[in-house]
Amino acid sequence: MQADFKDSIECLSRHGVQASSLWRAKVDEVGLSTARKILDDNGVAAVSLCAGGLFADGSKTAVEDNKRWIDEALALGADSLVVISGGLSEGDRDLAAARDRVIQGLSDIVPYAQAQGMRLALEPLHPMVCGFRSVISSLGDALDILDAVDADDTLGVAVDSYALWWDPGLESQIQRASSRVLNFHASDWLRETRDVREDRGMIGDGCIDNRLIRSWLERAGFDGFVEVEIFSALDWWKRPIDDVVSTIVARAGATL
Amino acid sequence: MQADFKDSIECLSRHGVQASSLWRAKVDEVGLSTARKILDDNGVAAVSLCAGGLFADGSKTAVEDNKRWIDEALALGADSLVVISGGLSEGDRDLAAARDRVIQGLSDIVPYAQAQGMRLALEPLHPMVCGFRSVISSLGDALDILDAVDADDTLGVAVDSYALWWDPGLESQIQRASSRVLNFHASDWLRETRDVREDRGMIGDGCIDNRLIRSWLERAGFDGFVEVEIFSALDWWKRPIDDVVSTIVARAGATL
Repeated sequence: MQADFKDSIECLSRHGVQASSLWRAKVDEVGLSTARKILDDNGVAAVSLCAGGLFADGSKTAVEDNKRWIDEALALGADSLVVISGGLSEGDRDLAAARDRVIQGLSDIVPYAQAQGMRLALEPLHPMVCGFRSVISSLGDALDILDAVDADDTLGVAVDSYALWWDPGLESQIQRASSRVLNFHASDWLRETRDVREDRGMIGDGCIDNRLIRSWLERAGFDGFVEVEIFSALDWWKRPIDDVVSTIVARAGATL
Repeated sequence: MQADFKDSIECLSRHGVQASSLWRAKVDEVGLSTARKILDDNGVAAVSLCAGGLFADGSKTAVEDNKRWIDEALALGADSLVVISGGLSEGDRDLAAARDRVIQGLSDIVPYAQAQGMRLALEPLHPMVCGFRSVISSLGDALDILDAVDADDTLGVAVDSYALWWDPGLESQIQRASSRVLNFHASDWLRETRDVREDRGMIGDGCIDNRLIRSWLERAGFDGFVEVEIFSALDWWKRPIDDVVSTIVARAGATL
Protein backbone atom coordinates (compact mmCIF):
# COMPACT_ATOMS: atom_id res chain seq x y z
CA MET A 1 0.00 0.00 0.00
CA GLN A 2 1.10 3.48 -0.84
CA ALA A 3 0.70 5.18 2.56
CA ASP A 4 1.78 4.62 6.14
CA PHE A 5 -0.67 4.31 9.02
CA LYS A 6 -0.77 8.01 9.92
CA ASP A 7 -1.16 9.23 6.31
CA SER A 8 -3.93 6.66 5.73
CA ILE A 9 -5.98 7.62 8.79
CA GLU A 10 -5.55 11.35 8.12
CA CYS A 11 -6.69 10.80 4.55
CA LEU A 12 -9.82 8.96 5.69
CA SER A 13 -10.59 11.74 8.13
CA ARG A 14 -10.06 14.41 5.44
CA HIS A 15 -12.70 12.72 3.27
CA GLY A 16 -15.22 12.26 6.07
CA VAL A 17 -14.73 8.54 6.64
CA GLN A 18 -15.52 7.81 10.29
CA ALA A 19 -14.34 4.26 10.74
CA SER A 20 -11.97 1.71 9.27
CA SER A 21 -10.72 -1.77 9.87
CA LEU A 22 -7.00 -1.93 10.52
CA TRP A 23 -4.35 -4.30 9.23
CA ARG A 24 -2.00 -5.66 11.86
CA ALA A 25 1.13 -5.01 9.81
CA LYS A 26 0.21 -1.32 9.49
CA VAL A 27 -0.48 -1.03 13.21
CA ASP A 28 2.81 -2.78 13.98
CA GLU A 29 4.73 -0.18 11.99
CA VAL A 30 3.80 2.53 14.50
CA GLY A 31 2.95 0.51 17.61
CA LEU A 32 -0.34 0.13 19.45
CA SER A 33 -0.42 3.27 21.54
CA THR A 34 0.63 5.54 18.68
CA ALA A 35 -1.94 3.90 16.42
CA ARG A 36 -4.69 4.48 18.98
CA LYS A 37 -3.62 8.12 19.38
CA ILE A 38 -3.66 8.68 15.60
CA LEU A 39 -7.17 7.20 15.40
CA ASP A 40 -8.45 9.35 18.29
CA ASP A 41 -6.77 12.52 17.01
CA ASN A 42 -8.52 12.08 13.66
CA GLY A 43 -11.91 10.94 14.89
CA VAL A 44 -11.63 7.61 13.09
CA ALA A 45 -12.95 4.52 14.91
CA ALA A 46 -11.47 1.04 14.53
CA VAL A 47 -14.07 -1.40 13.19
CA SER A 48 -11.91 -4.53 13.29
CA LEU A 49 -8.35 -5.64 13.52
CA CYS A 50 -7.37 -7.86 10.55
CA ALA A 51 -6.53 -10.64 10.53
CA GLY A 52 -6.28 -13.28 13.21
CA GLY A 53 -6.98 -16.97 13.01
CA LEU A 54 -4.58 -18.83 10.69
CA PHE A 55 -5.14 -22.19 12.31
CA ALA A 56 -5.37 -24.45 9.26
CA ASP A 57 -1.68 -25.15 8.88
CA GLY A 58 -1.38 -26.40 12.45
CA SER A 59 0.83 -23.56 13.74
CA LYS A 60 1.86 -24.27 17.35
CA THR A 61 1.76 -20.57 18.29
CA ALA A 62 -1.67 -19.81 16.80
CA VAL A 63 -3.59 -19.79 20.08
CA GLU A 64 -1.12 -17.51 21.86
CA ASP A 65 -0.87 -15.29 18.77
CA ASN A 66 -4.64 -14.88 18.67
CA LYS A 67 -4.86 -14.02 22.37
CA ARG A 68 -2.32 -11.25 21.74
CA TRP A 69 -4.29 -10.01 18.71
CA ILE A 70 -7.48 -9.96 20.81
CA ASP A 71 -5.62 -7.77 23.32
CA GLU A 72 -4.46 -5.53 20.50
CA ALA A 73 -7.97 -5.23 19.06
CA LEU A 74 -9.17 -4.19 22.52
CA ALA A 75 -6.41 -1.61 22.86
CA LEU A 76 -7.40 -0.11 19.50
CA GLY A 77 -11.06 0.08 20.48
CA ALA A 78 -12.08 -2.32 17.70
CA ASP A 79 -15.44 -4.11 17.75
CA SER A 80 -14.07 -7.37 16.41
CA LEU A 81 -11.03 -9.33 15.40
CA VAL A 82 -11.48 -10.60 11.84
CA VAL A 83 -10.35 -14.21 11.69
CA ILE A 84 -9.32 -16.07 8.55
CA SER A 85 -8.79 -19.79 8.64
CA GLY A 86 -5.39 -20.01 7.00
CA GLY A 87 -4.50 -22.35 4.15
CA LEU A 88 -2.76 -25.66 3.67
CA SER A 89 0.88 -26.27 4.46
CA GLU A 90 3.11 -27.07 1.50
CA GLY A 91 2.47 -30.68 0.54
CA ASP A 92 -0.70 -31.05 2.63
CA ARG A 93 -3.74 -32.30 0.68
CA ASP A 94 -6.08 -33.07 3.58
CA LEU A 95 -8.66 -30.30 3.52
CA ALA A 96 -11.00 -32.00 5.98
CA ALA A 97 -8.25 -32.21 8.60
CA ALA A 98 -7.30 -28.57 7.97
CA ARG A 99 -10.91 -27.54 8.60
CA ASP A 100 -10.95 -29.58 11.81
CA ARG A 101 -7.89 -27.62 12.96
CA VAL A 102 -9.84 -24.40 12.36
CA ILE A 103 -12.73 -25.64 14.54
CA GLN A 104 -10.23 -26.64 17.24
CA GLY A 105 -8.33 -23.35 17.04
CA LEU A 106 -11.49 -21.26 17.29
CA SER A 107 -12.71 -23.39 20.20
CA ASP A 108 -9.38 -22.74 21.93
CA ILE A 109 -9.56 -18.94 21.66
CA VAL A 110 -13.29 -18.32 22.12
CA PRO A 111 -13.19 -18.47 25.96
CA TYR A 112 -10.45 -15.82 26.03
CA ALA A 113 -12.35 -13.63 23.55
CA GLN A 114 -15.53 -14.04 25.62
CA ALA A 115 -13.70 -13.05 28.79
CA GLN A 116 -12.33 -9.94 27.10
CA GLY A 117 -15.63 -9.05 25.43
CA MET A 118 -14.07 -9.17 21.95
CA ARG A 119 -16.08 -10.63 19.06
CA LEU A 120 -14.43 -12.78 16.40
CA ALA A 121 -15.57 -12.50 12.78
CA LEU A 122 -14.69 -15.57 10.70
CA GLU A 123 -14.22 -14.42 7.11
CA PRO A 124 -14.54 -16.96 4.29
CA LEU A 125 -12.20 -16.06 1.44
CA HIS A 126 -12.47 -16.77 -2.27
CA PRO A 127 -11.93 -20.41 -3.31
CA MET A 128 -8.94 -19.25 -5.38
CA VAL A 129 -6.97 -18.67 -2.16
CA CYS A 130 -7.96 -22.00 -0.59
CA GLY A 131 -4.45 -23.33 -1.08
CA PHE A 132 -2.49 -20.77 0.89
CA ARG A 133 -4.86 -18.45 2.70
CA SER A 134 -8.28 -19.88 3.66
CA VAL A 135 -9.73 -23.37 3.62
CA ILE A 136 -13.14 -21.80 4.33
CA SER A 137 -14.49 -20.69 0.97
CA SER A 138 -18.19 -19.93 1.21
CA LEU A 139 -20.52 -18.34 3.73
CA GLY A 140 -22.26 -21.69 4.16
CA ASP A 141 -18.93 -23.33 5.02
CA ALA A 142 -18.15 -20.58 7.53
CA LEU A 143 -21.54 -20.98 9.21
CA ASP A 144 -21.00 -24.74 9.40
CA ILE A 145 -17.78 -23.97 11.31
CA LEU A 146 -19.64 -21.58 13.62
CA ASP A 147 -22.23 -24.27 14.30
CA ALA A 148 -19.43 -26.65 15.29
CA VAL A 149 -17.90 -24.25 17.86
CA ASP A 150 -19.52 -23.59 21.23
CA ALA A 151 -19.34 -19.82 21.21
CA ASP A 152 -22.66 -18.00 21.87
CA ASP A 153 -22.48 -14.60 20.13
CA THR A 154 -18.72 -14.18 20.48
CA LEU A 155 -18.19 -15.78 17.10
CA GLY A 156 -19.71 -14.33 13.94
CA VAL A 157 -18.81 -13.91 10.28
CA ALA A 158 -17.42 -11.23 8.01
CA VAL A 159 -19.06 -11.07 4.57
CA ASP A 160 -16.72 -9.94 1.79
CA SER A 161 -18.52 -9.46 -1.50
CA TYR A 162 -15.34 -10.13 -3.50
CA ALA A 163 -15.00 -13.57 -1.91
CA LEU A 164 -18.64 -14.60 -2.11
CA TRP A 165 -20.40 -12.87 -5.03
CA TRP A 166 -20.28 -15.92 -7.34
CA ASP A 167 -22.31 -18.13 -4.96
CA PRO A 168 -26.01 -18.57 -5.88
CA GLY A 169 -26.61 -19.64 -2.27
CA LEU A 170 -25.34 -16.35 -0.85
CA GLU A 171 -28.72 -14.74 -0.21
CA SER A 172 -30.03 -17.75 1.73
CA GLN A 173 -26.78 -18.12 3.69
CA ILE A 174 -26.95 -14.44 4.69
CA GLN A 175 -30.46 -15.12 6.01
CA ARG A 176 -29.08 -18.12 7.87
CA ALA A 177 -26.27 -15.99 9.32
CA SER A 178 -28.76 -13.37 10.50
CA SER A 179 -27.35 -11.36 13.42
CA ARG A 180 -24.06 -13.24 13.21
CA VAL A 181 -22.82 -10.98 10.39
CA LEU A 182 -20.35 -8.64 12.09
CA ASN A 183 -18.66 -7.06 9.06
CA PHE A 184 -19.39 -6.26 5.42
CA HIS A 185 -16.41 -5.76 3.11
CA ALA A 186 -17.10 -4.50 -0.41
CA SER A 187 -15.02 -4.21 -3.54
CA ASP A 188 -15.56 -5.25 -7.15
CA TRP A 189 -14.59 -8.26 -9.26
CA LEU A 190 -12.80 -7.37 -12.48
CA ARG A 191 -14.18 -9.58 -15.26
CA GLU A 192 -10.71 -10.62 -16.37
CA THR A 193 -8.73 -10.55 -13.17
CA ARG A 194 -4.95 -10.82 -13.31
CA ASP A 195 -3.97 -11.86 -9.82
CA VAL A 196 -5.54 -14.08 -7.15
CA ARG A 197 -4.95 -11.59 -4.33
CA GLU A 198 -4.09 -8.11 -5.50
CA ASP A 199 -6.23 -7.21 -8.49
CA ARG A 200 -9.51 -6.21 -6.83
CA GLY A 201 -11.58 -3.64 -8.64
CA MET A 202 -12.88 -0.27 -7.46
CA ILE A 203 -16.59 -0.39 -6.57
CA GLY A 204 -18.54 0.09 -9.80
CA ASP A 205 -15.82 -1.25 -12.10
CA GLY A 206 -16.73 -4.93 -12.13
CA CYS A 207 -19.28 -7.73 -11.92
CA ILE A 208 -20.52 -7.46 -8.32
CA ASP A 209 -23.92 -6.07 -7.43
CA ASN A 210 -22.81 -4.79 -4.01
CA ARG A 211 -26.06 -2.93 -3.52
CA LEU A 212 -28.03 -6.16 -3.89
CA ILE A 213 -25.77 -7.99 -1.42
CA ARG A 214 -26.09 -5.08 1.00
CA SER A 215 -29.88 -5.28 0.71
CA TRP A 216 -29.72 -8.97 1.68
CA LEU A 217 -27.53 -8.08 4.66
CA GLU A 218 -29.85 -5.32 5.82
CA ARG A 219 -32.87 -7.60 5.49
CA ALA A 220 -31.00 -10.06 7.74
CA GLY A 221 -30.59 -7.28 10.31
CA PHE A 222 -27.06 -6.05 9.59
CA ASP A 223 -26.65 -2.36 10.38
CA GLY A 224 -22.87 -2.00 10.59
CA PHE A 225 -20.43 -0.14 8.39
CA VAL A 226 -19.82 -0.86 4.72
CA GLU A 227 -16.06 -1.27 4.52
CA VAL A 228 -14.49 -0.81 1.10
CA GLU A 229 -11.39 -2.99 0.83
CA ILE A 230 -9.50 -2.90 -2.47
CA PHE A 231 -6.35 -5.03 -2.62
CA SER A 232 -4.90 -3.69 -5.83
CA ALA A 233 -1.15 -3.76 -6.17
CA LEU A 234 -1.71 -3.70 -9.93
CA ASP A 235 -3.68 -0.46 -10.03
CA TRP A 236 -5.17 1.43 -7.08
CA TRP A 237 -2.20 1.08 -4.74
CA LYS A 238 -0.17 2.95 -7.33
CA ARG A 239 -2.43 6.01 -7.19
CA PRO A 240 -2.40 8.95 -4.76
CA ILE A 241 -4.43 7.94 -1.69
CA ASP A 242 -6.64 11.02 -1.87
CA ASP A 243 -7.71 9.94 -5.38
CA VAL A 244 -8.53 6.45 -4.11
CA VAL A 245 -10.57 7.59 -1.12
CA SER A 246 -12.37 10.36 -3.00
CA THR A 247 -13.31 7.87 -5.74
CA ILE A 248 -14.74 5.50 -3.14
CA VAL A 249 -16.70 8.30 -1.49
CA ALA A 250 -17.97 9.61 -4.83
CA ARG A 251 -19.12 6.18 -6.01
CA ALA A 252 -20.53 4.87 -2.74
CA GLY A 253 -23.97 6.38 -3.23
CA ALA A 254 -24.55 4.74 -6.60
CA THR A 255 -22.91 1.37 -6.01
CA LEU A 256 -23.22 0.39 -2.34
CA MET B 1 -0.34 -25.30 -26.57
CA GLN B 2 2.93 -26.43 -28.01
CA ALA B 3 1.69 -28.99 -30.56
CA ASP B 4 -0.79 -29.21 -33.41
CA PHE B 5 -3.60 -31.74 -33.52
CA LYS B 6 -1.68 -34.47 -35.34
CA ASP B 7 1.45 -34.20 -33.19
CA SER B 8 -0.70 -34.27 -30.04
CA ILE B 9 -2.64 -37.40 -30.98
CA GLU B 10 0.49 -39.20 -32.19
CA CYS B 11 2.18 -38.33 -28.91
CA LEU B 12 -0.72 -39.72 -26.87
CA SER B 13 -0.66 -42.91 -28.95
CA ARG B 14 3.12 -43.24 -28.52
CA HIS B 15 2.68 -43.22 -24.74
CA GLY B 16 -0.20 -45.67 -24.70
CA VAL B 17 -3.01 -43.18 -24.05
CA GLN B 18 -6.16 -44.61 -25.62
CA ALA B 19 -8.60 -41.72 -25.42
CA SER B 20 -8.71 -37.95 -25.15
CA SER B 21 -11.16 -35.12 -25.12
CA LEU B 22 -10.67 -32.69 -27.98
CA TRP B 23 -10.69 -28.91 -28.07
CA ARG B 24 -12.74 -27.40 -30.87
CA ALA B 25 -10.05 -24.92 -31.86
CA LYS B 26 -7.55 -27.75 -32.37
CA VAL B 27 -10.04 -29.75 -34.42
CA ASP B 28 -10.83 -26.68 -36.49
CA GLU B 29 -7.18 -26.29 -37.42
CA VAL B 30 -7.26 -29.54 -39.42
CA GLY B 31 -10.96 -29.97 -40.14
CA LEU B 32 -13.38 -32.65 -38.97
CA SER B 33 -12.64 -35.46 -41.41
CA THR B 34 -8.88 -35.13 -41.08
CA ALA B 35 -9.22 -35.02 -37.29
CA ARG B 36 -11.28 -38.22 -37.31
CA LYS B 37 -8.75 -39.92 -39.59
CA ILE B 38 -5.84 -38.93 -37.31
CA LEU B 39 -7.71 -40.33 -34.30
CA ASP B 40 -8.52 -43.59 -36.08
CA ASP B 41 -5.02 -44.00 -37.53
CA ASN B 42 -3.57 -43.69 -34.02
CA GLY B 43 -6.12 -45.75 -32.14
CA VAL B 44 -7.11 -42.81 -29.97
CA ALA B 45 -10.82 -42.44 -29.16
CA ALA B 46 -12.55 -39.09 -28.64
CA VAL B 47 -14.05 -38.85 -25.16
CA SER B 48 -15.67 -35.43 -25.54
CA LEU B 49 -15.60 -32.37 -27.68
CA CYS B 50 -14.86 -29.23 -25.62
CA ALA B 51 -16.54 -26.90 -25.18
CA GLY B 52 -20.08 -26.01 -26.13
CA GLY B 53 -22.69 -24.10 -24.21
CA LEU B 54 -21.74 -20.45 -23.64
CA PHE B 55 -25.29 -19.30 -23.08
CA ALA B 56 -24.86 -16.92 -20.15
CA ASP B 57 -24.07 -13.81 -22.13
CA GLY B 58 -27.25 -14.11 -24.20
CA SER B 59 -25.55 -14.85 -27.54
CA LYS B 60 -28.16 -15.01 -30.31
CA THR B 61 -26.27 -17.74 -32.18
CA ALA B 62 -25.68 -20.04 -29.20
CA VAL B 63 -28.41 -22.55 -30.03
CA GLU B 64 -27.35 -22.96 -33.67
CA ASP B 65 -23.68 -23.05 -32.63
CA ASN B 66 -24.39 -25.86 -30.20
CA LYS B 67 -26.32 -27.90 -32.75
CA ARG B 68 -23.29 -27.68 -35.03
CA TRP B 69 -20.95 -28.70 -32.19
CA ILE B 70 -23.21 -31.68 -31.44
CA ASP B 71 -22.87 -32.71 -35.10
CA GLU B 72 -19.11 -32.28 -34.85
CA ALA B 73 -18.92 -34.37 -31.69
CA LEU B 74 -20.86 -37.11 -33.48
CA ALA B 75 -18.53 -36.95 -36.48
CA LEU B 76 -15.54 -37.36 -34.17
CA GLY B 77 -17.09 -40.35 -32.44
CA ALA B 78 -17.16 -38.55 -29.09
CA ASP B 79 -19.35 -39.73 -26.23
CA SER B 80 -20.31 -36.26 -25.10
CA LEU B 81 -20.14 -32.56 -25.77
CA VAL B 82 -18.76 -30.78 -22.72
CA VAL B 83 -20.83 -27.68 -22.07
CA ILE B 84 -19.72 -24.67 -20.06
CA SER B 85 -22.19 -21.99 -19.13
CA GLY B 86 -20.31 -18.91 -20.27
CA GLY B 87 -19.75 -15.79 -18.20
CA LEU B 88 -21.22 -12.35 -17.85
CA SER B 89 -21.17 -9.75 -20.58
CA GLU B 90 -19.11 -6.65 -19.88
CA GLY B 91 -21.14 -4.46 -17.53
CA ASP B 92 -23.66 -7.16 -16.61
CA ARG B 93 -24.07 -7.75 -12.86
CA ASP B 94 -27.19 -9.92 -12.88
CA LEU B 95 -25.95 -13.43 -12.11
CA ALA B 96 -29.43 -14.84 -11.52
CA ALA B 97 -30.56 -13.77 -15.00
CA ALA B 98 -27.38 -15.19 -16.53
CA ARG B 99 -28.09 -18.55 -14.88
CA ASP B 100 -31.66 -18.45 -16.20
CA ARG B 101 -30.23 -18.01 -19.70
CA VAL B 102 -28.15 -21.15 -19.16
CA ILE B 103 -31.26 -23.13 -18.21
CA GLN B 104 -33.07 -21.77 -21.26
CA GLY B 105 -30.15 -22.48 -23.59
CA LEU B 106 -29.76 -26.05 -22.39
CA SER B 107 -33.51 -26.59 -22.69
CA ASP B 108 -33.30 -25.35 -26.28
CA ILE B 109 -30.54 -27.77 -27.35
CA VAL B 110 -31.47 -30.89 -25.37
CA PRO B 111 -34.11 -32.12 -27.86
CA TYR B 112 -31.57 -31.92 -30.70
CA ALA B 113 -28.94 -33.72 -28.61
CA GLN B 114 -31.50 -36.38 -27.67
CA ALA B 115 -32.42 -36.90 -31.32
CA GLN B 116 -28.75 -37.30 -32.24
CA GLY B 117 -27.94 -39.52 -29.29
CA MET B 118 -25.27 -37.13 -28.03
CA ARG B 119 -24.91 -36.54 -24.29
CA LEU B 120 -24.14 -33.10 -22.90
CA ALA B 121 -21.83 -32.74 -19.89
CA LEU B 122 -22.30 -29.45 -18.03
CA GLU B 123 -18.98 -28.55 -16.44
CA PRO B 124 -18.93 -26.16 -13.49
CA LEU B 125 -15.74 -24.08 -13.53
CA HIS B 126 -13.83 -22.50 -10.69
CA PRO B 127 -15.48 -19.44 -9.07
CA MET B 128 -12.47 -17.37 -10.14
CA VAL B 129 -13.68 -17.53 -13.77
CA CYS B 130 -17.30 -16.68 -12.92
CA GLY B 131 -16.90 -13.24 -14.49
CA PHE B 132 -15.93 -14.23 -18.01
CA ARG B 133 -16.22 -18.00 -18.41
CA SER B 134 -18.77 -19.78 -16.22
CA VAL B 135 -21.56 -18.57 -13.95
CA ILE B 136 -21.91 -22.16 -12.70
CA SER B 137 -19.26 -22.57 -10.02
CA SER B 138 -19.90 -25.68 -7.96
CA LEU B 139 -21.15 -29.19 -8.61
CA GLY B 140 -24.24 -28.44 -6.51
CA ASP B 141 -25.02 -25.43 -8.71
CA ALA B 142 -24.60 -27.53 -11.85
CA LEU B 143 -26.93 -30.21 -10.51
CA ASP B 144 -29.50 -27.54 -9.65
CA ILE B 145 -29.35 -26.50 -13.31
CA LEU B 146 -29.77 -30.13 -14.43
CA ASP B 147 -32.80 -30.45 -12.16
CA ALA B 148 -34.32 -27.38 -13.83
CA VAL B 149 -33.97 -28.78 -17.37
CA ASP B 150 -36.22 -31.53 -18.71
CA ALA B 151 -33.56 -33.78 -20.20
CA ASP B 152 -33.69 -37.45 -19.04
CA ASP B 153 -30.13 -38.82 -19.25
CA THR B 154 -29.03 -36.63 -22.17
CA LEU B 155 -27.71 -34.04 -19.74
CA GLY B 156 -25.01 -34.85 -17.20
CA VAL B 157 -22.03 -33.17 -15.59
CA ALA B 158 -18.28 -33.08 -16.01
CA VAL B 159 -16.32 -33.07 -12.75
CA ASP B 160 -13.03 -31.18 -12.94
CA SER B 161 -10.99 -31.53 -9.76
CA TYR B 162 -9.22 -28.19 -10.36
CA ALA B 163 -12.56 -26.37 -10.39
CA LEU B 164 -14.16 -28.16 -7.45
CA TRP B 165 -11.49 -29.40 -5.00
CA TRP B 166 -12.01 -26.56 -2.46
CA ASP B 167 -15.68 -27.42 -1.85
CA PRO B 168 -16.39 -29.34 1.37
CA GLY B 169 -19.72 -30.38 -0.17
CA LEU B 170 -18.06 -32.10 -3.13
CA GLU B 171 -18.32 -35.67 -1.86
CA SER B 172 -22.04 -35.38 -1.14
CA GLN B 173 -22.71 -33.63 -4.46
CA ILE B 174 -20.91 -36.42 -6.31
CA GLN B 175 -23.23 -38.88 -4.57
CA ARG B 176 -26.16 -36.71 -5.62
CA ALA B 177 -24.88 -36.65 -9.21
CA SER B 178 -24.57 -40.44 -9.26
CA SER B 179 -24.76 -41.79 -12.82
CA ARG B 180 -25.00 -38.27 -14.21
CA VAL B 181 -21.20 -37.82 -14.02
CA LEU B 182 -20.04 -38.20 -17.63
CA ASN B 183 -16.45 -36.94 -17.38
CA PHE B 184 -13.68 -36.63 -14.81
CA HIS B 185 -10.95 -34.07 -15.49
CA ALA B 186 -7.92 -34.07 -13.21
CA SER B 187 -5.03 -31.68 -12.69
CA ASP B 188 -3.49 -30.08 -9.62
CA TRP B 189 -3.85 -26.77 -7.82
CA LEU B 190 -0.60 -24.94 -7.24
CA ARG B 191 -0.64 -23.49 -3.72
CA GLU B 192 0.35 -20.05 -4.96
CA THR B 193 -1.20 -19.90 -8.39
CA ARG B 194 -0.23 -17.07 -10.74
CA ASP B 195 -3.03 -17.00 -13.29
CA VAL B 196 -6.76 -17.65 -13.16
CA ARG B 197 -6.79 -19.86 -16.28
CA GLU B 198 -3.36 -21.02 -17.35
CA ASP B 199 -1.34 -21.97 -14.29
CA ARG B 200 -2.68 -25.45 -13.54
CA GLY B 201 -0.28 -27.83 -11.91
CA MET B 202 0.90 -31.28 -13.01
CA ILE B 203 -0.81 -34.07 -11.05
CA GLY B 204 1.15 -34.54 -7.83
CA ASP B 205 2.52 -31.00 -7.66
CA GLY B 206 -0.26 -29.30 -5.73
CA CYS B 207 -3.03 -29.37 -3.14
CA ILE B 208 -5.59 -31.69 -4.74
CA ASP B 209 -6.18 -35.22 -3.53
CA ASN B 210 -7.27 -36.50 -6.95
CA ARG B 211 -7.24 -40.10 -5.75
CA LEU B 212 -9.75 -39.27 -3.02
CA ILE B 213 -12.03 -37.47 -5.48
CA ARG B 214 -11.75 -40.40 -7.87
CA SER B 215 -12.76 -42.77 -5.06
CA TRP B 216 -15.90 -40.68 -4.47
CA LEU B 217 -16.68 -40.82 -8.20
CA GLU B 218 -16.21 -44.57 -8.38
CA ARG B 219 -18.39 -45.09 -5.32
CA ALA B 220 -21.07 -43.09 -7.16
CA GLY B 221 -20.76 -45.46 -10.10
CA PHE B 222 -18.45 -43.56 -12.44
CA ASP B 223 -16.33 -45.88 -14.57
CA GLY B 224 -15.17 -43.58 -17.37
CA PHE B 225 -11.73 -42.28 -18.25
CA VAL B 226 -9.61 -40.07 -16.02
CA GLU B 227 -8.70 -37.16 -18.27
CA VAL B 228 -5.67 -35.13 -17.26
CA GLU B 229 -6.13 -31.54 -18.40
CA ILE B 230 -3.33 -29.10 -17.55
CA PHE B 231 -3.81 -25.56 -18.82
CA SER B 232 -0.34 -24.23 -18.18
CA ALA B 233 0.88 -21.49 -20.46
CA LEU B 234 3.28 -20.55 -17.66
CA ASP B 235 5.03 -23.90 -17.45
CA TRP B 236 3.95 -27.20 -19.04
CA TRP B 237 2.97 -25.78 -22.44
CA LYS B 238 6.57 -24.62 -22.78
CA ARG B 239 7.95 -28.15 -22.44
CA PRO B 240 8.34 -30.86 -25.09
CA ILE B 241 5.03 -32.73 -25.36
CA ASP B 242 6.65 -36.11 -24.85
CA ASP B 243 7.96 -34.91 -21.49
CA VAL B 244 4.48 -33.72 -20.51
CA VAL B 245 2.69 -36.94 -21.48
CA SER B 246 5.37 -39.23 -20.06
CA THR B 247 5.24 -37.31 -16.76
CA ILE B 248 1.45 -37.76 -16.62
CA VAL B 249 1.75 -41.46 -17.39
CA ALA B 250 4.52 -41.95 -14.83
CA ARG B 251 2.63 -40.15 -12.07
CA ALA B 252 -0.84 -41.48 -12.77
CA GLY B 253 -0.43 -44.61 -10.68
CA ALA B 254 0.54 -42.75 -7.52
CA THR B 255 -1.72 -39.73 -7.80
CA LEU B 256 -4.94 -40.66 -9.63
